[in-house]
Amino acid sequence: VEEVANATAKVLREQGAQALQYGLTEGYTPLRELLAKRYSREGLNLTSAHILITSGSQQALDLLGKIFIDPGDKILVESPTYMGALQAWNSYEPEYIAIPSDNSGIMTEGLEEALKAKPKFMYVLPNFQNPTGIAFSLPRRQHLMWVAKQHGTVVVEDDPYGELRFEGKNLPSLLEMESLYESEKRTISGDYQGNIIHLGTFSKTLAPGFRLGWVIAAPEVISKLAQAKQGVDLHTSSINQFVAYEMLNSGFLEEHIHVIRRTYRERRDVMLAAMTEHFPAEIKWTRPEGGMFIWVMLPKGMDATELLAKAIERRVAFVPGLSFHATGGGENTMRLNFSNSAPDKIRIGIKLLGEIITEEWNNGAGRTGQTFAGTASRG
Amino acid sequence: VEEVANATAKVLREQGAQALQYGLTEGYTPLRELLAKRYSREGLNLTSAHILITSGSQQALDLLGKIFIDPGDKILVESPTYMGALQAWNSYEPEYIAIPSDNSGIMTEGLEEALKAKPKFMYVLPNFQNPTGIAFSLPRRQHLMWVAKQHGTVVVEDDPYGELRFEGKNLPSLLEMESLYESEKRTISGDYQGNIIHLGTFSKTLAPGFRLGWVIAAPEVISKLAQAKQGVDLHTSSINQFVAYEMLNSGFLEEHIHVIRRTYRERRDVMLAAMTEHFPAEIKWTRPEGGMFIWVMLPKGMDATELLAKAIERRVAFVPGLSFHATGGGENTMRLNFSNSAPDKIRIGIKLLGEIITEEWNNGAGRTGQTFAGTASRG
Repeated sequence: VEEVANATAKVLREQGAQALQYGLTEGYTPLRELLAKRYSREGLNLTSAHILITSGSQQALDLLGKIFIDPGDKILVESPTYMGALQAWNSYEPEYIAIPSDNSGIMTEGLEEALKAKPKFMYVLPNFQNPTGIAFSLPRRQHLMWVAKQHGTVVVEDDPYGELRFEGKNLPSLLEMESLYESEKRTISGDYQGNIIHLGTFSKTLAPGFRLGWVIAAPEVISKLAQAKQGVDLHTSSINQFVAYEMLNSGFLEEHIHVIRRTYRERRDVMLAAMTEHFPAEIKWTRPEGGMFIWVMLPKGMDATELLAKAIERRVAFVPGLSFHATGGGENTMRLNFSNSAPDKIRIGIKLLGEIITEEWNNGAGRTGQTFAGTASRG
Repeated sequence: VEEVANATAKVLREQGAQALQYGLTEGYTPLRELLAKRYSREGLNLTSAHILITSGSQQALDLLGKIFIDPGDKILVESPTYMGALQAWNSYEPEYIAIPSDNSGIMTEGLEEALKAKPKFMYVLPNFQNPTGIAFSLPRRQHLMWVAKQHGTVVVEDDPYGELRFEGKNLPSLLEMESLYESEKRTISGDYQGNIIHLGTFSKTLAPGFRLGWVIAAPEVISKLAQAKQGVDLHTSSINQFVAYEMLNSGFLEEHIHVIRRTYRERRDVMLAAMTEHFPAEIKWTRPEGGMFIWVMLPKGMDATELLAKAIERRVAFVPGLSFHATGGGENTMRLNFSNSAPDKIRIGIKLLGEIITEEWNNGAGRTGQTFAGTASRG
């Protein structure tokens, strides 16, 4: 809060009139340049022409729907996937093809077959996916990229949590990986022209209240998205972009991400330990190396939506898994968030949730079958 | 700038964590309550349930397109009308029915006939319309309301400039007028449930850089719009809403509007005087009592888009009228903005523009016909 106050005061002192005026639909140029620099690396040359600032990355999802989806178009998604993406796209009436995932991310074995349906794009969250918390393994990323390149498939890489890794090794983004394929094609490396549309956001690292996200893509795609954005909200809040630029440029954001990682790691550890202590042995869950979420698989036949009603009576909340499934299923799954509560509250919450699940279990729910949803290896 | 800095510092000091967090899709409740109170009057009872905060009123236009327009649906608009509305709706593929307007606003004589096509809604800007600057006369407002009520037509009343009247008498909004019809139907007046969808914005009174607008409508409509908004950008920037609330609640905005009115009135007067001095007698234009725009009708055959290219060479800009026409026409019209330049610059700009128009005229452009576009009484 203090850093935001200082940055805002500086912006208003030095560029007040400009920060309160209308701005470019594409976004504040210095912020776009800074982001381009931040993402550029050997073989991946990005400029401000590759960046569109959006009103949160939720808006990027809506704009993608607007420019890509006609009713009946096929969209390839993971199962489960981010419910906000489905919410953004449902109004454009696509048909979803859902590819299952396991502890290593999307199961790419089925990709070749699925791409025969010629989806308009493939939508994936390779890092600490919402809702499962799983990060795609390196072999899965490599295979996905290979298959996508063979088929010329557009890949929307949604990456809100990539900077929130608190253990294990950082893995390259699909955007970075594609530059390998791109650079094979040319001797002198030019500006990025590939098929990855990468979504980023300040919501998980700086503040969700700013509603600031960005799209990185080939300039041709950015220009189509910007045209759509002009009709949708003209441009994203100028002052918020100026303040974010300050906080990124001063180096504060980098420091702050370290604090977030430490905090979230502790909370994840507390939640996982409490789950091991309080959840019946029949329950399986993921063990994320970053991000904000743990995914829980209840025994088949136990309904997470019914469970939520009982949990709320005792002031514990989670998100039932059903709505993360583009093509149905997942009634026995749920998403837990560990980032937003202090360790003591997490312990109490998980203890209560464990009691509720145990009661359900003892009342016979979920005891009709002994198999689990999702993949058996999770947890 | 200073007032924004003070309000922001206060918000961050007192409610920092909340102002930087996610918020409700419908908007910050105290701001919605304050707006409801501001618009409520005898017979018009509004609560926060009637208000949706949007990311600029441009977003309201997009959301209306999303919930109302299927391809081929008819939409009734004025001719000319706000090009941003057409831009927002074109992607939903409506068919426009354009009703001409004159110095008293939309020509309601043709409304009955046009409504037979059963448009999904009628879109009007009754106050200092963008682009003409014209305000609908009271009889026109009354007739429009009467016809719309008879047909049960939904009316989208876009009102970004209503508070910027600097001469003449304030006229009631369609929202206020409808309450007369509503209150006839009941003895005890309940909450507003009518057919007007009223759009407001802070962009013309506080700062466009905040991207803050609002919709006022029956709670049922607000709830549909909020559902659409959730998929589009989750919610509008929290901190910007908190700051706007402060500035509205403290009374600053009211004072500031007086300053804006004084400033714009002076600029309008300077522009009108310069036009009389420098424009050929064959040119007609509107004389707005508020807002930001003057509409110019060049002789038929003179093309404002070609004129713009020449004007830009001499560093004068305007918006050619073509793009404000939903169903074509208006090549010989242009929109001038008087709000954004200091009086001296306005004088120089109009003098240059007058010279350019005169050259065109002397070169024979527009001399094929002696009639004028739009209505002869303007100017």
